[in-house]
Amino acid sequence: MRSMRVCCPGSFDPVTNGHINIFTRAARMFDEVTVLVTYNPNKSGLFDADERIALIREALDATGLPEAEKITIDTWDSLLVDYLSEHDIPALVKGLRSSLDYEYELPMAQMNQRLTGVETFFLLTDPEYGYVSSTICKEVAKYGGDVNGLLPENVAEAVLAKYRG
Amino acid sequence: MRSMRVCCPGSFDPVTNGHINIFTRAARMFDEVTVLVTYNPNKSGLFDADERIALIREALDATGLPEAEKITIDTWDSLLVDYLSEHDIPALVKGLRSSLDYEYELPMAQMNQRLTGVETFFLLTDPEYGYVSSTICKEVAKYGGDVNGLLPENVAEAVLAKYRG
Amino acid sequence: MRSMRVCCPGSFDPVTNGHINIFTRAARMFDEVTVLVTYNPNKSGLFDADERIALIREALDATGLPEAEKITIDTWDSLLVDYLSEHDIPALVKGLRSSLDYEYELPMAQMNQRLTGVETFFLLTDPEYGYVSSTICKEVAKYGGDVNGLLPENVAEAVLAKYRG
Amino acid sequence: MRSMRVCCPGSFDPVTNGHINIFTRAARMFDEVTVLVTYNPNKSGLFDADERIALIREALDATGLPEAEKITIDTWDSLLVDYLSEHDIPALVKGLRSSLDYEYELPMAQMNQRLTGVETFFLLTDPEYGYVSSTICKEVAKYGGDVNGLLPENVAEAVLAKYRG
Amino acid sequence: MRSMRVCCPGSFDPVTNGHINIFTRAARMFDEVTVLVTYNPNKSGLFDADERIALIREALDATGLPEAEKITIDTWDSLLVDYLSEHDIPALVKGLRSSLDYEYELPMAQMNQRLTGVETFFLLTDPEYGYVSSTICKEVAKYGGDVNGLLPENVAEAVLAKYRG
Amino acid sequence: MRSMRVCCPGSFDPVTNGHINIFTRAARMFDEVTVLVTYNPNKSGLFDADERIALIREALDATGLPEAEKITIDTWDSLLVDYLSEHDIPALVKGLRSSLDYEYELPMAQMNQRLTGVETFFLLTDPEYGYVSSTICKEVAKYGGDVNGLLPENVAEAVLAKYRG
Repeated sequence: MRSMRVCCPGSFDPVTNGHINIFTRAARMFDEVTVLVTYNPNKSGLFDADERIALIREALDATGLPEAEKITIDTWDSLLVDYLSEHDIPALVKGLRSSLDYEYELPMAQMNQRLTGVETFFLLTDPEYGYVSSTICKEVAKYGGDVNGLLPENVAEAVLAKYRG
Repeated sequence: MRSMRVCCPGSFDPVTNGHINIFTRAARMFDEVTVLVTYNPNKSGLFDADERIALIREALDATGLPEAEKITIDTWDSLLVDYLSEHDIPALVKGLRSSLDYEYELPMAQMNQRLTGVETFFLLTDPEYGYVSSTICKEVAKYGGDVNGLLPENVAEAVLAKYRG
Repeated sequence: MRSMRVCCPGSFDPVTNGHINIFTRAARMFDEVTVLVTYNPNKSGLFDADERIALIREALDATGLPEAEKITIDTWDSLLVDYLSEHDIPALVKGLRSSLDYEYELPMAQMNQRLTGVETFFLLTDPEYGYVSSTICKEVAKYGGDVNGLLPENVAEAVLAKYRG
Repeated sequence: MRSMRVCCPGSFDPVTNGHINIFTRAARMFDEVTVLVTYNPNKSGLFDADERIALIREALDATGLPEAEKITIDTWDSLLVDYLSEHDIPALVKGLRSSLDYEYELPMAQMNQRLTGVETFFLLTDPEYGYVSSTICKEVAKYGGDVNGLLPENVAEAVLAKYRG
Repeated sequence: MRSMRVCCPGSFDPVTNGHINIFTRAARMFDEVTVLVTYNPNKSGLFDADERIALIREALDATGLPEAEKITIDTWDSLLVDYLSEHDIPALVKGLRSSLDYEYELPMAQMNQRLTGVETFFLLTDPEYGYVSSTICKEVAKYGGDVNGLLPENVAEAVLAKYRG
Repeated sequence: MRSMRVCCPGSFDPVTNGHINIFTRAARMFDEVTVLVTYNPNKSGLFDADERIALIREALDATGLPEAEKITIDTWDSLLVDYLSEHDIPALVKGLRSSLDYEYELPMAQMNQRLTGVETFFLLTDPEYGYVSSTICKEVAKYGGDVNGLLPENVAEAVLAKYRG
């Protein structure tokens, strides 16, 4: 039996509890999960790629879940399917929060399948995190709003430090 | 019996007849309505915050409706729920024009409720104004298209003056 | 200052925790809330109208919330706006679980406003109950699935009794 | 490494090429796939459960794809999660044709996860089959319309035989 | 130059002002418009096929619009594309009231194009009639609600007569 | 009988096979089709307006379809309805790929009808091109992904030349 590997791609600027929930659910089902931080080198985010990786790693370790050990983290700044081909990963796992997410994810998922046959498995976001996005958490944190419970603890601290800094 | 206060937040750059319709319907139901012009001090709109307030006041007065007198106007450039806490307002009233509006409004409404327990009441936009937005009115007016009936009279004039100027 | 009254209509066959959540949130905002069990006398449900009322009353009392006392329950088998006119209730409060709910609720809400000027205020369903409906709870309970946490305790028991009986 | 098993549930009355496409894509990714024909013993369809199974088996064999051999077929007329528990299957795989499908599938998927922790992986339907459903194929075939390419060959013949008979 | 013919199919039980609006807009654009009353001979509606035709004809004549004369009315109880082939009509015109209508209309439109190459042109329903359907008008009229403005005058009368009778 | 003229407006930066499909289907139904390249003179795209026109003309000619000859191409950088009035064109034809497209197109379509009575006919995008947009093709091509079959051959070459250049 081959080992089943999947990839969870995203900008994760920064990772939220909704993302962590998807990563660990994927890791419960598949043998290896690669969280892939995709970024545009010409656009600066709140965190750079290395910071995002460190935040994800720390947050995963803090869950104490055994499946967190099956998750590795990497970065990529080019065509997603090229990364998957190079690493022999046949499928993506993504969260869906709403029918709007479905509409936005569909074109890239169909395109990826057409380009190299890569499949995308969609998992429904846990209802608790259905309204949580990196963007809304940053908006709230920027003005001093409380994002505990929505961002992992280490991420909430890092975000606050950025806005205070 | 306590007085029931609600807030109608938005950028209102500029206010449309669809907005005015929501403000007055809210004022028919609740005791006090605060229209809150939210703006980002680092981003310039077509009108500045003071102009937007003046246009809303004028437009409300021009309706001649008794409920327009229950409506006050204010501005805010920080976290919305902080304004509501300071002024002891327990709920927002917002218009929904479409299922897409629903999808866009949901995350902020859930976030606001989580932050301080603030409720959001959604009213369906009057069908007559279902396609009207500040953005589309500005696009049309910019090229000389007729926006009468979509914007209050004073606002239509002010928009034309801006684009002519 | 007048007393602000609203109505929460529905078939409630049976009431779910999602419904109870909407009723109590409405009661926190408004002075009086009438939960109105609407039913079609020619169609039989799992519970008859009297049973539904009793289940709602019990479930509300069991919450121990002070706002539950502001809620009364009634039934109606004709045009909803006629009930509202007779009882001088100017507005409805309904929960929205999804953009699909929005699409289904819109026609009746616009129609009611056109018929007598009745407004409908939509509240977003608590994320925890976003997938909960009377229908799905009955489907699950029918085959012995666990609906605790989705239905009020007394309702879960009554449903099980029906399917066992 | 454990064997990864998934289930594709549905009424499949009858199976379409859209369904076959999902089954074989699932079988390419997972070690074992159980197609589960769910039916209501009190409601008669066009085909009974045994006929549906036979049609699916034949259609799968006719694809000539190696992954078809990893697919077994079974029936169930009770709570889906009970079947999965009994057979130790941790996840479902379902196709999504549209954002409307998303809205309809979400409540049951969330419910299933709540009941026993079962995950649902959604795959996007191949664009070629996006508008294909058992219902529309039956409607067209009933009036002599051509459903070749939409239903597997053996299924198209069986449907025509039913309506002729 | 050939004459451009289109068909507006539907059950029209009964025709609403929203339908009449689509028919006349189609007739303004195309040379000939056939309103096609489709019905299921095994299912009884409020009006039979002949009554529906008579109501549409009367309602069209009552508009006094010159384009009403370009509209003919027919019935059909089999596969729609067969009617179109027999009468050499290359396209359908249908109204869209919402994104939900879009989702429901898409499968049949794609199927029709696949079957015989028939095109479907979608027109947006006039905002004034966006919430109007035959079903909701019947529900309201049944309990004595006022459907004037939503149904053509002759249709409103006929509906009331049915429910009184 | 008058000649029936329609316009297909868009930025077409660059034209895709999905667009070409809509243009030719419109040309099969109507007597004359104007593809109108709309652009904002203050915003630069991948191709300038003249390049876009040349690419569309070449792509249309390469189809070898007789209806391609009924299609003319023009540009416009002001209010769309002004172009239509000047050229006496009563209707637009646009493709719909999804319910999200419907939501985005609705406001402008309603606005255009209100401004000058212009109608918009929506055709459903061929399922094969449902996920194809100028934006996604540029994203993929930029990183060396294969866009053959999604863009006309001449357009695919021109895009590659731009990104290589």
